[in-house]
Amino acid sequence: MNAPGSTRSATPPEHVFDWLDDAAARRADAGLVRTLTSRPAESKRLDLAGNDYLGLARDKRVAGAAAAAALKWGAGATGSRLVTGSTEVHAELEYELARFCGAQAALVFSSGFAANLGAVTALTGKEAAIVTDSYIHASLVEGCRLSRADLAVVEHNNPGAVEHALATRRKQRALVVTDSVFSVDGDLAPLRELSAACRRHSAALLVDDAHGLGVLGDGGRGAVHAAGLAGEPDVVTTVTLSKSLGAQGGAVLGPRRVIKHLVNTARSFIFDTALAPASAAAALAALRVLRDEPELAERVRTRARELADRLTDAGFGVSAPEAAVVSVRAPSADEAAAWAARCAERGVDVGCFRPPSVPDGVARLRLTAKADLSEPELDRAVTVLTETAPPSARR
Amino acid sequence: MNAPGSTRSATPPEHVFDWLDDAAARRADAGLVRTLTSRPAESKRLDLAGNDYLGLARDKRVAGAAAAAALKWGAGATGSRLVTGSTEVHAELEYELARFCGAQAALVFSSGFAANLGAVTALTGKEAAIVTDSYIHASLVEGCRLSRADLAVVEHNNPGAVEHALATRRKQRALVVTDSVFSVDGDLAPLRELSAACRRHSAALLVDDAHGLGVLGDGGRGAVHAAGLAGEPDVVTTVTLSKSLGAQGGAVLGPRRVIKHLVNTARSFIFDTALAPASAAAALAALRVLRDEPELAERVRTRARELADRLTDAGFGVSAPEAAVVSVRAPSADEAAAWAARCAERGVDVGCFRPPSVPDGVARLRLTAKADLSEPELDRAVTVLTETAPPSARR
Ligand SMILES: Cc1ncc(COP(=O)(O)O)c(C=O)c1O
Ligand SMILES: Cc1ncc(COP(=O)(O)O)c(C=O)c1O
Repeated sequence: MNAPGSTRSATPPEHVFDWLDDAAARRADAGLVRTLTSRPAESKRLDLAGNDYLGLARDKRVAGAAAAAALKWGAGATGSRLVTGSTEVHAELEYELARFCGAQAALVFSSGFAANLGAVTALTGKEAAIVTDSYIHASLVEGCRLSRADLAVVEHNNPGAVEHALATRRKQRALVVTDSVFSVDGDLAPLRELSAACRRHSAALLVDDAHGLGVLGDGGRGAVHAAGLAGEPDVVTTVTLSKSLGAQGGAVLGPRRVIKHLVNTARSFIFDTALAPASAAAALAALRVLRDEPELAERVRTRARELADRLTDAGFGVSAPEAAVVSVRAPSADEAAAWAARCAERGVDVGCFRPPSVPDGVARLRLTAKADLSEPELDRAVTVLTETAPPSARR
Repeated sequence: MNAPGSTRSATPPEHVFDWLDDAAARRADAGLVRTLTSRPAESKRLDLAGNDYLGLARDKRVAGAAAAAALKWGAGATGSRLVTGSTEVHAELEYELARFCGAQAALVFSSGFAANLGAVTALTGKEAAIVTDSYIHASLVEGCRLSRADLAVVEHNNPGAVEHALATRRKQRALVVTDSVFSVDGDLAPLRELSAACRRHSAALLVDDAHGLGVLGDGGRGAVHAAGLAGEPDVVTTVTLSKSLGAQGGAVLGPRRVIKHLVNTARSFIFDTALAPASAAAALAALRVLRDEPELAERVRTRARELADRLTDAGFGVSAPEAAVVSVRAPSADEAAAWAARCAERGVDVGCFRPPSVPDGVARLRLTAKADLSEPELDRAVTVLTETAPPSARR
């Protein structure tokens, strides 16, 4: 803007970020300010907001495995997976995760976000086309943006639109990208139809099973397994270790050659410190719990249905829960936030999704069922939600 | 490619990923295949490859804090920072990290990679210009690509080129992005000159201090602190918790309004499960060790200089180490890999950086000093590197 060396019109340093105050004021006007509150370790609150679907994050076997691993391996992995960061725990977790889900191989990333970035970018590129559902998770969206691929974003859960986009693409290679369970409403993607469309059009399918693992499929093997697509040569699955498995991290599951390709090309894998051994060990312990107690998956689905049924009976607009997520429509962003705040005052924590985090612009409360939700807790949840609801939330 | 519904020319599913085999063959031909090997918990190997610069990952105070936190808080944070993932440990870490580094505020991310993505994208956007050094870390590059900002990539460590790019930019807002210590060669960015250029041209400065924290500056307060830029209203710093602090995670440090903006807009913050409490607690414990033992930072710098001096005396082409990284030039990618492999056979682990991970195309061994490197270990390192060197590696 200025000639090199000119200082006359330079903004003083303390004003360089003034534009952030304007952005903050706009957020405040729109009622969309987000603030952080930190929670204590112990509380009597009812958590219907977190994603610890099976209640394993604080399970003694899981937390104990994390603690033991920290003492045995150290607090951090000390380097990227390709340098010093791969421990025997990472390898064991990859082996057991792949076996459990019925995939040829698995690769652990430091987060589900990083797994999605890595899988989408490494499997596409300038010479490929991506077709995505319009409601996919933000981390998949970022992967698509980074990929430089031709991008077609089609109507939510419309396999016909996916097929049309595949048929009219300009690139030879194509990848269809979808969530299995959509994170906001908890609805399911039509995985079988999507796979069939892919096969008619020589495309690969990438499914983010973050909310399916531990909840859906035989013993919690996930939505891809449930759809009969585990181990298929043209299907890649991403998962997180941070929800049903109660830890942190993410993984990509798929054909061995896909995994090798990611090791060699996924920038969010290569240029990132490996997952802490404690988190890898915790996810492994949780996976073993799930293998030993396959009924956990069924239990969380039952709790979700009970919660949804009772809220529907109370007159709310509730999504039919396919997994653990129960979504309750709110009249507006402001009223959703106020409703969630009133629940919190009464000791019940619920998620509140507002624009721009909701793809359809509809604000809602997002409740998550847990396998260990008790009958009295269910009562308490329904009572508090009902008593704090804005009048127009009920039909 | 095909008409909708047409199946005639569809590739069979088992051939959809055949292109990966071609890519793998090209890698093999170029001698650039990367494979994973997992390490055991205990070994007699000499680690000159990891980034645990202060030897804190396995320090009892640090690993013990991780273990205690896993037992107290659970293995995972259970949700994103804005939902259920912010614990008192995260808040404490943010408070102490900001104070230690002299910043107004801090925000913890699940990785340094995620911190860089979040900071670069949230502070720029379509209406901004970014000027970056051509050697910045891959995670900053990804942030720039995601930002949709005008992007000028200028010659390595050339503040004049940065100034020219700022002066000729087309957008009002601008952000200069650099590493403090470049990760491949360990050289330092001219932070004071860059800041002066920013100020002459109304730009903000973002410094990735991943390899500076714990190593440079008063008591390890980092390169930004050392340059007198900590707490400045137009400077933002990113750090990792995975190197000197021996844990996992990342953070952004800066003016309070920057941090608030990130909480509200950084997608790698909002849509990502919070860092595991064990990792946050470990980083906090490591920070306290560093505060109590400020000599650790000086010690690792001394070890790096000793290592570099002795390798220079042995005839190798060695970078002058500004921090903990010592880079040794290799004649070619193949020879670098073979040299590193021979070192590994002799029990000494060194990093090997080859294209495309080296911005200048020059392959090298990358050694990292540790604060706890002993005299006999130094001897062993120099002996093994010398005895395994390809003839043309010595001048
Ligand atoms: C559908 C989906 N994919 C990916 C992620 C990212 O996983 P992580 O939080 O482990 O980074 C999440 C949640 O955070 C998610 O809901
Ligand atoms: C300069 C630099 N920035 C950022 C990162 C990413 O940090 P993390 O590994 O904690 O994700 C790294 C290393 O991995 C790095 O070297």
